[in-house]
Amino acid sequence: MAHLANRISQVADEMPIALSMGEPAGIATEISLKAWLALRESAGSFFLMHDPDCVAAAASALSLPIPIRRIQHAREAAAIFPHALPIFPMRLVEPALPGLLNRRNAPAVIDSIRRGVEFVKSGEAVALVTNPIQKAALYAAGFGFPGHTEFLEHLAGQPYRATMMLVCAALKVVPVTVHESLQSAITSLTTERIVAVALSTAKALTQDFGVVRPRLAIAGLNPHAGEGGAMGREEIDLIVPALKVLAAEGVLATGPWPPDTMFTARARLEYDAAICMYHDQALIPLKTLDVDGGVNVTLGLPFVRTSPDHGTAVNLAGRGLAEPGSLIAALRLAREIAAQRQKQ
Amino acid sequence: MAHLANRISQVADEMPIALSMGEPAGIATEISLKAWLALRESAGSFFLMHDPDCVAAAASALSLPIPIRRIQHAREAAAIFPHALPIFPMRLVEPALPGLLNRRNAPAVIDSIRRGVEFVKSGEAVALVTNPIQKAALYAAGFGFPGHTEFLEHLAGQPYRATMMLVCAALKVVPVTVHESLQSAITSLTTERIVAVALSTAKALTQDFGVVRPRLAIAGLNPHAGEGGAMGREEIDLIVPALKVLAAEGVLATGPWPPDTMFTARARLEYDAAICMYHDQALIPLKTLDVDGGVNVTLGLPFVRTSPDHGTAVNLAGRGLAEPGSLIAALRLAREIAAQRQKQ
Repeated sequence: MAHLANRISQVADEMPIALSMGEPAGIATEISLKAWLALRESAGSFFLMHDPDCVAAAASALSLPIPIRRIQHAREAAAIFPHALPIFPMRLVEPALPGLLNRRNAPAVIDSIRRGVEFVKSGEAVALVTNPIQKAALYAAGFGFPGHTEFLEHLAGQPYRATMMLVCAALKVVPVTVHESLQSAITSLTTERIVAVALSTAKALTQDFGVVRPRLAIAGLNPHAGEGGAMGREEIDLIVPALKVLAAEGVLATGPWPPDTMFTARARLEYDAAICMYHDQALIPLKTLDVDGGVNVTLGLPFVRTSPDHGTAVNLAGRGLAEPGSLIAALRLAREIAAQRQKQ
Repeated sequence: MAHLANRISQVADEMPIALSMGEPAGIATEISLKAWLALRESAGSFFLMHDPDCVAAAASALSLPIPIRRIQHAREAAAIFPHALPIFPMRLVEPALPGLLNRRNAPAVIDSIRRGVEFVKSGEAVALVTNPIQKAALYAAGFGFPGHTEFLEHLAGQPYRATMMLVCAALKVVPVTVHESLQSAITSLTTERIVAVALSTAKALTQDFGVVRPRLAIAGLNPHAGEGGAMGREEIDLIVPALKVLAAEGVLATGPWPPDTMFTARARLEYDAAICMYHDQALIPLKTLDVDGGVNVTLGLPFVRTSPDHGTAVNLAGRGLAEPGSLIAALRLAREIAAQRQKQ
């Protein structure tokens, strides 16, 4: 048995992660190069789906003397990785200029994500990690999805439903409503949405993080969780009913927690993930606590996908100042989740 | 001049802080006793406005062998303080039982606050620190104010307008809307309210904290500060106009900041206080960062008032487990603010 477990873990270590190019005018190429520098001696490889000429030009411009090597198949990555950054070649129509968005390069950005999904669906890559994209640049080129998550959900096909989790060492959070105004978040909150996100989170905590009996903390929406209806009724009308459904489903869920006290060091000991009612209720504590770089994990897909929790930083591009911490954390966590899934 | 400054600071050190009793069925008496233990050897004294029999009984029940001494005048406190906890006697109608709210004791709780305001208004005490009260118990006895702040505003009289600031070592936050539902916070937000709170904060940063040129960070309301109107228009319609008014008034204010990234260690270097649009936007980062106990400071009153940032903890009362950290921080900060005001 120990032999078999070792063998499985070796296979997982040999299988590469597919890393998408992200916005070529932003910091994605720079942090990808720096991530290879940080990880080249560790177990497990990744390859970058990108234009080799663009990557070589960026390495040279940034004075990062990093060898790159083209690959034709994902399986070549592991042997190359200790010596050079493996590149699965994509083609940019025009050279990428730091800070200058170019819609003519958008098709390659989109194609890099699509190709990454093919690699993970076929089992040639163990996980997909995506570099940040500039949505406006993609919309201008006709990209028809609000963002990465919806595009990945589309590529995964029915019946998969993606849920965004943000992870740092101190905290895991899952917002029920995400990229909408605060007013719209309040209006669109329903018991059904809270239950669906909580169930997806509980499942992922076991499948992806190895938590045998996941404990969820369900946040209130209002100050002091509404104080018995004195400051808002959403807790009574929507959240307590969700807690009842979850209890009936056998999920360990507590709440509604007063939002301001649920992220203290002491409170965080009492749950494995916090289910939050809106974007900033989840993201404020995470980014406030997160020193080394948080990671965005997409739950509910048939493959492992993570990404750094920052944007394209177009204004920072080409200056050598970009911090690769969050991408490195995303690559490490993707491998951990893949290994966890393979144990099952 | 140095002699005069020393003399003024000696006067400030000798002048006591008035500490109200708070809810006698909660942890207030216990943390007051523990705060005396922690502070008795430091410069500056405080006296507790409370029932001496109740305090003695609590000290005995909690095995805190702390001598107490009745005083008739605030000026007696300084000499007694190193040896015993000075008590300005109030009278509870019935013995205080840990965990059992008793509306018959509410008048003494209210009276303790009122008496404290008299001490600071007359100049006999250098600051008022209030222990936590249980509002429901006071309402039942006919207390006609939503909370401490409004009562203190009433006692201060026209034209004073109180603003709540929360302070910890890492961060100062001021919420524009406070104890109302999240829906109501959105609806009641106006440019005028944002400007009024920001001006009050800028003034207090100079007067109370000695910041010569205060820098304010004005938060957005929506995720990513609305992303140019794509996720809510309050930034465009309310917050940017407030920034223009503040600039015209000569206040250094930046924003609207994306709420989720404005509380990172790096972002916090760029401002002295964050002006937040709703309760939890301010309180989540503060309580998440705050390890030693945050302090509630009331800005805009003609006297110094601070309080711990926790509640009565009635369920914890009588067990000896209450942490005095936030009350100790409130007592220390009250003295610092008083000293800062006396310099001017």
